[in-house]
Amino acid sequence: MDKFKIIDKGNVCTPKGFRASGVNGGIKKNNTTKKDVALIVSDKPSRAAGTYTLNRYAAAPVTVTKEYIKDGILQAVVVNSGNANACTGEKGYLDAKQMAAITAQNLNLKEQDVAVASTGVIGVNLDMEVMGKAIIKAASSLSYEGGHDAAEAIMTTDTCSKEIAIEVDINGTPVKIGGMAKGSGMIHPNMATMLCFVTTDAFIDQKLMHTALKEIIDDTFNMVTVDGDTSTNDMAVVLANGMAGNKEIRDIDDNYKKFYDGLYYVLEALSIMIAKDGEGASKLFTVNVLNCTTKKDAKKIAKSVIQSSLVKTAIFGEDANWGRIIAAVGYSEAQFDETKVDIYLKSGSMSIKVAENGAGLVFDEVMAKEILSKRQVEAVIDMKDGTNSATAWGCDLTYDYVKINADYRS
Amino acid sequence: MDKFKIIDKGNVCTPKGFRASGVNGGIKKNNTTKKDVALIVSDKPSRAAGTYTLNRYAAAPVTVTKEYIKDGILQAVVVNSGNANACTGEKGYLDAKQMAAITAQNLNLKEQDVAVASTGVIGVNLDMEVMGKAIIKAASSLSYEGGHDAAEAIMTTDTCSKEIAIEVDINGTPVKIGGMAKGSGMIHPNMATMLCFVTTDAFIDQKLMHTALKEIIDDTFNMVTVDGDTSTNDMAVVLANGMAGNKEIRDIDDNYKKFYDGLYYVLEALSIMIAKDGEGASKLFTVNVLNCTTKKDAKKIAKSVIQSSLVKTAIFGEDANWGRIIAAVGYSEAQFDETKVDIYLKSGSMSIKVAENGAGLVFDEVMAKEILSKRQVEAVIDMKDGTNSATAWGCDLTYDYVKINADYRS
Repeated sequence: MDKFKIIDKGNVCTPKGFRASGVNGGIKKNNTTKKDVALIVSDKPSRAAGTYTLNRYAAAPVTVTKEYIKDGILQAVVVNSGNANACTGEKGYLDAKQMAAITAQNLNLKEQDVAVASTGVIGVNLDMEVMGKAIIKAASSLSYEGGHDAAEAIMTTDTCSKEIAIEVDINGTPVKIGGMAKGSGMIHPNMATMLCFVTTDAFIDQKLMHTALKEIIDDTFNMVTVDGDTSTNDMAVVLANGMAGNKEIRDIDDNYKKFYDGLYYVLEALSIMIAKDGEGASKLFTVNVLNCTTKKDAKKIAKSVIQSSLVKTAIFGEDANWGRIIAAVGYSEAQFDETKVDIYLKSGSMSIKVAENGAGLVFDEVMAKEILSKRQVEAVIDMKDGTNSATAWGCDLTYDYVKINADYRS
Repeated sequence: MDKFKIIDKGNVCTPKGFRASGVNGGIKKNNTTKKDVALIVSDKPSRAAGTYTLNRYAAAPVTVTKEYIKDGILQAVVVNSGNANACTGEKGYLDAKQMAAITAQNLNLKEQDVAVASTGVIGVNLDMEVMGKAIIKAASSLSYEGGHDAAEAIMTTDTCSKEIAIEVDINGTPVKIGGMAKGSGMIHPNMATMLCFVTTDAFIDQKLMHTALKEIIDDTFNMVTVDGDTSTNDMAVVLANGMAGNKEIRDIDDNYKKFYDGLYYVLEALSIMIAKDGEGASKLFTVNVLNCTTKKDAKKIAKSVIQSSLVKTAIFGEDANWGRIIAAVGYSEAQFDETKVDIYLKSGSMSIKVAENGAGLVFDEVMAKEILSKRQVEAVIDMKDGTNSATAWGCDLTYDYVKINADYRS
């Protein structure tokens, strides 16, 4: 618990030397007030690492960011919401490059040091005249207090912004890690799901940071699902400007471990925020798989249950339908002993065992009902056949999910 | 078209020598009028073949049927709705056997010649006193006109029964194939999804029939999805009693091909009926993938699109959101050239191209709207990179799906 300190109202501007802004640039159609362009800028060139969507229709900004991050250096990130710039052909690619170029020009940076990200509608070309003005506006609004505005500007159907920052002690030097993310729909584990930007003033080897990011994303963002749809625009990027002045983290030692745990905390917290704010969600639903033979199988089982539409509607319906949970365990394609599986439903300190050794138990329906009436519900699946565990985060499937995504009907 | 004749109001009793019944036996709780026990009985022992769920929690009746069908012979099928007899432990297994035993006793058959199937709630043991009486009632109600009653008795949340029969000419002898199925929820391609029973009076080699069944199920039932959940109770069983008197089909020849095409038609028709009557569905949604490099990839793409919650809600919302379709193509894990893909929306004779070479087109929004307002909507995805195709069937994701499955909230 003392490993790091959570910073009240922390965000991407909490680490030293990071400015940010979020402005309304007119990218979101029919909306003249919502912010839709965000900038994050480091005072110094930063070591950078990223992970990206595995969707074959990776959007133009993903392609450009992958290109520009190759040398391991970035100094700024420009992000817009309201238009994903995905499936937009050659013009889309050139537009994403131009977003970086305009940003670089206005901030006196190298174009290749600017990462680009977009989120919103697929298949519509950006209006670059509007975008150019919006970026200039964002550049002139940059401040060391702009982190919250930036987090707001990347929201689409999110109902709240997702931000966090922590402080970790590296060899006596306080090092800070801040993060922001957006989620909501088209959310499904398959590599760096969703948009996520992390800043840190840590001085750390680029390769080591990249390894940490990849490993942690696999256990956090890639274990979140809202609707099983892997987006074309997913991206998680970390910028480390070294301004904390710590001795460089170069090896897998205690200091690396501290940085790793801090980064893990930030990414896990953002993952949970995304799950909780999934489109139409009324509950955060967590699946904990315990004591599995392999970690891979534990993940398969957790993902299978968190994705099941029948489990998700049962959670919405506050129905202790463990049969749907065990059916999803059964079709997960994991290897396990069916006759050993126990299932518990939990919320906070309340817990009830609903199935044992792969079959149902008589349980207290009133208590089950009370657990399921809470805003945060957990299913614990004990495989009793090993030492590996996995956690997945998601939400219930509600009328509002359908409403948000079938809007012509609402 | 002249290959076979569709028989008006045909069902499992259309082939020679099959009796059936469907009765209300009191298995469905709180319901004293709906039918819930079905019997299908052949006058003669029949060659039989089956395919089953891949869910590791295969229900007790699946286990028993697999055991009893091993010698390739069955003479009857007993089915109940209202209780799945899944995850019910040793008692569940013994209960499934007893269902076969009671049926055999009352019909003077061998217990091992009776297949057993169940559908309904998971994890609740059957009341065998009620079940015993129900089977006796069903046995005494058997008739050569009972096919429709049997199809009704296996319904759960289905809103209509699913039945069909055809006649095919084998070497001058008319041979009939009849089928019934249930679907609705927990419907997802992974081996013989759902319950399906096919009868035929064809005289055909058992192994050949088994091969045909497996192949056809893979192209039909396994290409249907309602909610992505693979049930514990899926089963498709064919009984062939040889009473048509045709020369035995023993080789992969013209007669086999005719039988195969007839069986294909029956299973495809039942698959489409299931997709159309998916829980809460307001539209039948078909995905046709054309000109793909491999059949495997064509199937991956079709399944990925048919399962996408975002595509399904767009279809419900009558929204020509091809971006969601192409995103699902992109995360299908199939290999293809992203820059070649064209997408069309179709209904009946109306068709409109909405994307070309992986990017959007300006299209007639009014016509798109009209196509999407129909009850049967099709997405055609032309990969322009090979000769393989695949079709998947599903439905839209609606408020009613959520309502049906979160019933405590409704």
